[in-house]
Amino acid sequence: MTQSIKEPQKQRTQRKPMQKQHAQKAPAERNENTGKQQTARRRPFYSRGRKPAGKQQKPAAPAIPMHIIPLGGLGEVGKNITVYECQGDMLIVDCGLVFPDSDMFGIDLVIPDFTYVVQNKDKIKGIVITHGHEDHIGALPYLLKEVNLPIYATKLTIGLIKNKLEEHGLLGRTKLVEVKPRHKFKLGCFTVEPIHVNHSIPDAVALAIECPAGIVLQTGDFKIDYTPLSDDPTDLATIAEYGKKGVLALLSDSTNAERPGFTATEYKVAQSFANLFRQADKQRIIIATFASNIYRVQQIIDLAVENGRKVAVSGRSMANNTQMAMELGYLHAPEGVLIDLEQINKYPPEKVVLITTGSQGEPLSALSRMATASHRNVRVGPGDFIIISATPIPGNEKMVTKVVNGLLRLGAQVIYESMYDVHVSGHACQEEQKLVLTLANPKYFLPVHGEYKQLKKHAMTAESLGIPAKNIHIAEVGQDIILSADVLETGEPVPAGAVMVDGLGVGDVGNVVLRDRRHLSEDGLVIVVATVDRATGEVIAGPDLVSRGFVYVRESEELMDEARRLVSQCFDRCAMENVREWNSVKTRVRETLSSYIYRKTKRSPMILPILMEV
Amino acid sequence: MTQSIKEPQKQRTQRKPMQKQHAQKAPAERNENTGKQQTARRRPFYSRGRKPAGKQQKPAAPAIPMHIIPLGGLGEVGKNITVYECQGDMLIVDCGLVFPDSDMFGIDLVIPDFTYVVQNKDKIKGIVITHGHEDHIGALPYLLKEVNLPIYATKLTIGLIKNKLEEHGLLGRTKLVEVKPRHKFKLGCFTVEPIHVNHSIPDAVALAIECPAGIVLQTGDFKIDYTPLSDDPTDLATIAEYGKKGVLALLSDSTNAERPGFTATEYKVAQSFANLFRQADKQRIIIATFASNIYRVQQIIDLAVENGRKVAVSGRSMANNTQMAMELGYLHAPEGVLIDLEQINKYPPEKVVLITTGSQGEPLSALSRMATASHRNVRVGPGDFIIISATPIPGNEKMVTKVVNGLLRLGAQVIYESMYDVHVSGHACQEEQKLVLTLANPKYFLPVHGEYKQLKKHAMTAESLGIPAKNIHIAEVGQDIILSADVLETGEPVPAGAVMVDGLGVGDVGNVVLRDRRHLSEDGLVIVVATVDRATGEVIAGPDLVSRGFVYVRESEELMDEARRLVSQCFDRCAMENVREWNSVKTRVRETLSSYIYRKTKRSPMILPILMEV
Repeated sequence: MTQSIKEPQKQRTQRKPMQKQHAQKAPAERNENTGKQQTARRRPFYSRGRKPAGKQQKPAAPAIPMHIIPLGGLGEVGKNITVYECQGDMLIVDCGLVFPDSDMFGIDLVIPDFTYVVQNKDKIKGIVITHGHEDHIGALPYLLKEVNLPIYATKLTIGLIKNKLEEHGLLGRTKLVEVKPRHKFKLGCFTVEPIHVNHSIPDAVALAIECPAGIVLQTGDFKIDYTPLSDDPTDLATIAEYGKKGVLALLSDSTNAERPGFTATEYKVAQSFANLFRQADKQRIIIATFASNIYRVQQIIDLAVENGRKVAVSGRSMANNTQMAMELGYLHAPEGVLIDLEQINKYPPEKVVLITTGSQGEPLSALSRMATASHRNVRVGPGDFIIISATPIPGNEKMVTKVVNGLLRLGAQVIYESMYDVHVSGHACQEEQKLVLTLANPKYFLPVHGEYKQLKKHAMTAESLGIPAKNIHIAEVGQDIILSADVLETGEPVPAGAVMVDGLGVGDVGNVVLRDRRHLSEDGLVIVVATVDRATGEVIAGPDLVSRGFVYVRESEELMDEARRLVSQCFDRCAMENVREWNSVKTRVRETLSSYIYRKTKRSPMILPILMEV
Repeated sequence: MTQSIKEPQKQRTQRKPMQKQHAQKAPAERNENTGKQQTARRRPFYSRGRKPAGKQQKPAAPAIPMHIIPLGGLGEVGKNITVYECQGDMLIVDCGLVFPDSDMFGIDLVIPDFTYVVQNKDKIKGIVITHGHEDHIGALPYLLKEVNLPIYATKLTIGLIKNKLEEHGLLGRTKLVEVKPRHKFKLGCFTVEPIHVNHSIPDAVALAIECPAGIVLQTGDFKIDYTPLSDDPTDLATIAEYGKKGVLALLSDSTNAERPGFTATEYKVAQSFANLFRQADKQRIIIATFASNIYRVQQIIDLAVENGRKVAVSGRSMANNTQMAMELGYLHAPEGVLIDLEQINKYPPEKVVLITTGSQGEPLSALSRMATASHRNVRVGPGDFIIISATPIPGNEKMVTKVVNGLLRLGAQVIYESMYDVHVSGHACQEEQKLVLTLANPKYFLPVHGEYKQLKKHAMTAESLGIPAKNIHIAEVGQDIILSADVLETGEPVPAGAVMVDGLGVGDVGNVVLRDRRHLSEDGLVIVVATVDRATGEVIAGPDLVSRGFVYVRESEELMDEARRLVSQCFDRCAMENVREWNSVKTRVRETLSSYIYRKTKRSPMILPILMEV
């Protein structure tokens, strides 16, 4: 039932000369049974090369296999979830959602297909969460409604999950276990060690997952910041320690795989903010950022204190998150610095900083409402100095532009995007990815968390460091990846995919409904209703035409009158020809009407004939 | 009827210290009657400062006013069109379209509101076009269907317009006049001189428009390339000459106003392409670029010749444009280099270059079809080296990513975006904008062609060069801007705005239709039909429920059955209470159904009750 992964030729083309060199340098310095590297750390990373072709070393004992089954997060940014299995025990890492594409009309959010999890619920020992972003925790309530599993996460992450479960009425019945970096815990045959990493939210961890088959290192979302704010740098030493011990597989964050160099430090943002606070001088400062970016919020509070300003927050998620972070001790503010949003107008502009949501231009967010002068408490004007401390996520550029335009038109000064260093990414760039690849020194590499192009680039980076192409695998959602010290194979794919959530409906909107919504959105619809005598087939009321989203009817009377006349004729002809099969009548009406409408307007509204018999 | 433009306070805040300095340095070196600057060119630009407050110089004779009325292109990127008026004569510069926003469901394109042009058609002497991009010529057919006006443009631009008019059956009846840079022509009291500029399409011009009120310089889309390919640099000398003569107002391209520095030269792209051709070696090369970027196409043909490759083109607009450019002498290829798309498979991969459309990821374009393996002639695979020679236009990022992912998955090597220098912008960055501002040395400055944030930034750049804030005006579509040597004022706004084109319908889709399309796209609709006895008010057929785009009905039978039961009850109650006013019945049905559906699904489909009387 298993099939070997073929090393794709394409991956080799660009790096050919370099690889050849490495391959010849060092054939096999690795004990193939344990996946442990026997060379000292001083040995250059790339000296692990490929085994000479044709020579297959048989292991002494049958290797214990381990399964990695990604149910999301590959070929997409979002809905991260990975299932691990070894000797009949399973654990899940992360359980995120993804926001819908623009062609998923009316869909609120998209979650992974949990079929495989439900099928195996008795084997699963728990869910381990790397950090509290929506694309890693957002689908938890939907999974927990189907299977009750304990959740393991760090303190702040637990706090964020609690809020979420409370909204869904699931808090009471869910077991939440707080874990700490450097403190291992056991889940069945797995021993898991959370490893501290830098990211755009505190308390993010990578996971070292040890089982009889070997050690897998999953980075979660990470970057390496040597000068983070109120935090330690990514725990490189522990990653290195596992690397020395021998890592069977590394699953690493590919988000910024296309970007060379290093992600800039948060410290640079802090300096930039300090300058901008000086520049703002007598103006009110409004800063939009992600509600979960507690570091950024702390930075702003610290600067506010330094500059004698009070801080208020706007936006529900910002208010919830800051309050929770305060309670858990992740956010600190001296007594009296934080004020209510309703209070801000009692202070002069130069004494106020407002922290708000809406950095992605979300139409209903606090900042958007300020930009359209419809915020209940905040009127933006020439006295405002506004900083958008975020980069637009692909797809949001136009919304952010709209908000910036609105704020500028109101006379505010607006600092956005790349104009100043007011934001840094939370993800590792190429040099950081190389560092982790080098320290972890894995036998197998699986780039994860990214669009296909990013996974591909990350794979190329790994190959450039000397990891043999056959040991690098760009996985797909639903693949059963079987790892042992000998070989990387894939088994039968498991059920996996995307489930759309619309309102209370989970999965009840499928392709048919979406196709109809798309059709309706493009040209609207025309309904033809008629009441027909069952006995004679004669139309006794109607036909009436009702349209929505097609044309402005009052200005298209001629078109609609002619359409009605044609439909009437069509019914008459059907009666004359004694066509009594209502579906045939409907088809003829639909064809007549749609060809007339297309000829006259080059539009194809949905046409819906409805016949009532009396 | 006129109102003075107030100098917005906000514009001054950031540059205050610098302006003050200038204002004090040099009070008034300009002859306020003629708009001509009397200082020698050696004098630093910024030494023109503001007049001392309170001192109003009265002109000897009443100044002749000139009107500039932008009907599009401000606060948006697209549908550029500007009307000029002086002493009863009018001319129009450009007539472009804009592609619809994502919330304009089903709309094909958006054109300017031509009401003001139609009202003044007898005064208009002609339409002058700066270059052949859609956002400058795309609305011409729609305008020409309303008023027949002669068009003045350079040779290649005329060629592109001809293709467009032919499609709309307007070619025969339209007068097309070819103009040349450095050759002035008269339109009523206006004398127009086209000035050669660099842009991403050949034959682009700025326009010097001279009339009794003074000289206006409109840059059109431009950049300054000192080493362009098969072309001259922007004609800076002529711009400087007008600057010396005295420019009343400059209207300048703001697209890249947020970008510091200079736009890189096309020569850099040429070098990069040469490297990539070497790198592609034995692979087939496929290059996606804009069909109108004849320079880029020429570059590719030249490199193909050098490397012994044949060239084929794919995509309708690419085929049309290259053919037309060849005929007009803008594109040159030695005999036998160009081959038919059908022929490419007869040559080995290393002997072929394919130039294609689809650089923006347009779903129906040739490159998209290649990425989904649905192109009729081209199968992409590991033997392909693909270059996307364009930057995604804001809003298109996700579509481009989809295409890149698809091509990579097929095994091709793909060079995209910023990975290599395979594209440069066609628009001037800040330093180029400063150069033109300095050479043209205008009395009034109107940033045009851009989102509000770009216009604002361009205004700030002009202010930093010493143009007084009161002489800088960020105009709005429909504004009547009245310029004279004395003052910049605005008159009564004229009718202006956006007209949506959907199929053959121009302007028949308005806000009501769009609102319905949006509603339908989000939650679909539920139709309730019933036939009612006119005499008794009794329901004699139905009520039936028909839904589209709401839920997958087969899996929601219970919901729909209960909904039908509730609607039935509602009708019964109406009959019982003797409610005969059909609108009241409909309202009650709608309310009953929508509250039930929302409670059950948290969705709000459109609810459409239809009653038939017999």
